[in-house]
Amino acid sequence: MSPCMSRRGECWLKAERHNRYRLIEFGGGREEMTYCVGIVLQDGLVMLADTRTSAGLDDIATFRKLHVFEQPGERLFALATAGNLAFTQSVVGVLREGLEGENGLEKLVDQPTMFRAAQFVGRVIRHVYSTDGIALEQTGASLDVSMLFGGQVKGRQLRLYMMYKAGNFIEATSDTPFLQIGEHKYGKPILDRAVTFKTELYEGLKLALISMDSTMRSNLGVGMPLDFVVLRRDGMEWEQNTRIEPGEPYFHDLRERWSAALRRAHIDIPRPPYGPKS
Amino acid sequence: MSPCMSRRGECWLKAERHNRYRLIEFGGGREEMTYCVGIVLQDGLVMLADTRTSAGLDDIATFRKLHVFEQPGERLFALATAGNLAFTQSVVGVLREGLEGENGLEKLVDQPTMFRAAQFVGRVIRHVYSTDGIALEQTGASLDVSMLFGGQVKGRQLRLYMMYKAGNFIEATSDTPFLQIGEHKYGKPILDRAVTFKTELYEGLKLALISMDSTMRSNLGVGMPLDFVVLRRDGMEWEQNTRIEPGEPYFHDLRERWSAALRRAHIDIPRPPYGPKS
Repeated sequence: MSPCMSRRGECWLKAERHNRYRLIEFGGGREEMTYCVGIVLQDGLVMLADTRTSAGLDDIATFRKLHVFEQPGERLFALATAGNLAFTQSVVGVLREGLEGENGLEKLVDQPTMFRAAQFVGRVIRHVYSTDGIALEQTGASLDVSMLFGGQVKGRQLRLYMMYKAGNFIEATSDTPFLQIGEHKYGKPILDRAVTFKTELYEGLKLALISMDSTMRSNLGVGMPLDFVVLRRDGMEWEQNTRIEPGEPYFHDLRERWSAALRRAHIDIPRPPYGPKS
Repeated sequence: MSPCMSRRGECWLKAERHNRYRLIEFGGGREEMTYCVGIVLQDGLVMLADTRTSAGLDDIATFRKLHVFEQPGERLFALATAGNLAFTQSVVGVLREGLEGENGLEKLVDQPTMFRAAQFVGRVIRHVYSTDGIALEQTGASLDVSMLFGGQVKGRQLRLYMMYKAGNFIEATSDTPFLQIGEHKYGKPILDRAVTFKTELYEGLKLALISMDSTMRSNLGVGMPLDFVVLRRDGMEWEQNTRIEPGEPYFHDLRERWSAALRRAHIDIPRPPYGPKS
């Protein structure tokens, strides 16, 4: 039995502790606790991300996690990131500046299709992993990275992908129109129940915001401000590329209404019949 | 650098894979994917558990996870378990049959206070860990075990504890009246919003059932039937010790009403004002 085998329990504990508290003191330092959701709808695409990062509960800060790349009127891409901030910022940096390849410097905005663009993002993830990622893991850090990548190239399909650390990816479909990264569980029940491919575009944004509210309510590591983009299918410009600041009236009202509605909803459900007859 | 250090990334990956899919092929075999919630209220105690276990997605079965121990009229204890089924069943077995100690065979139902009873459960967890647990972890299995332990000893306080693998525990309080184990995130938003120490007892049961519904809706590893107990403070008998089978009319109705209410709730929230003016 290798030493690692016998210590796997310990590794698991560390991993689990990491998972629960994300108290990341190691290489890269800052972790995006993060909740991001993307929804691809008949009418278009919604992507929403929080901005909170932490390097321990005593070190919380705000970093943008939703990044927009475009060639106006021709190609619109948005990338939402979760995981080690040094890693994800490197990926965004290489996507903007380009990756040196056989055919010279290749950039994200030059990719001719969404699929090719997603492949390129995957290649950049692998590139950053091969330099920073392996070194990071050798320090004992775990590298947990995932991304949502959505957008449209003119004349082609609007698409939304979830990218993994290995650079591979899956695509949202009309059967499963939403994808989530980061702290995804608190906000999933409302999406599971309410989102379909035919959901209207701003109704989809509303559901994404409700899902974000549930997450922020239960996990302090996810927080305001929020960034979102809305892209209407074939619109070929960002219909929205907006930041919601704390105290913004609509989102504040949505949170209040949703809380009140949940309270009302459970009050309206009859009392269980199992109790003593009173 | 130890071999383990360099392979920690791999360990993490395994742990994470385990965490996501719980495809447990190793020692003990069967895993309680599980959702259990306990709520301690002004009026009494509610504990609710599902019954689904899995040894991989292709091997799903039903095992009781909510166990009741009592000396009628004197001591009432309930234990809800999550984690490796072989481990938790061993703990329950030792709790029932007794642990050989300095003063002979010691049993759970003989413990004079809830705190002493919780300490005894902790001792039994450590006992099982020292025999089965270490051997299990040496096979490469991770041992993820947690329990909710609640009840009352006549003339003393009603209490609810969460027990960890190390046999230590925390207690629910009027500030934080609910504790969850297992797949706890999907069902937490409603509890966070609606449960207070003053919530009426069967209202608390209803909220626990709503929380369970959210969990079952989003995770196939948590499933019917459900077991619950209700213990009125100083009642000194189980007011309920009940199984809810699939198709049971009240719970079916609760699920339908809750889904309908959530749909209505989000429809009642105004459309985001960010969109194009239509």
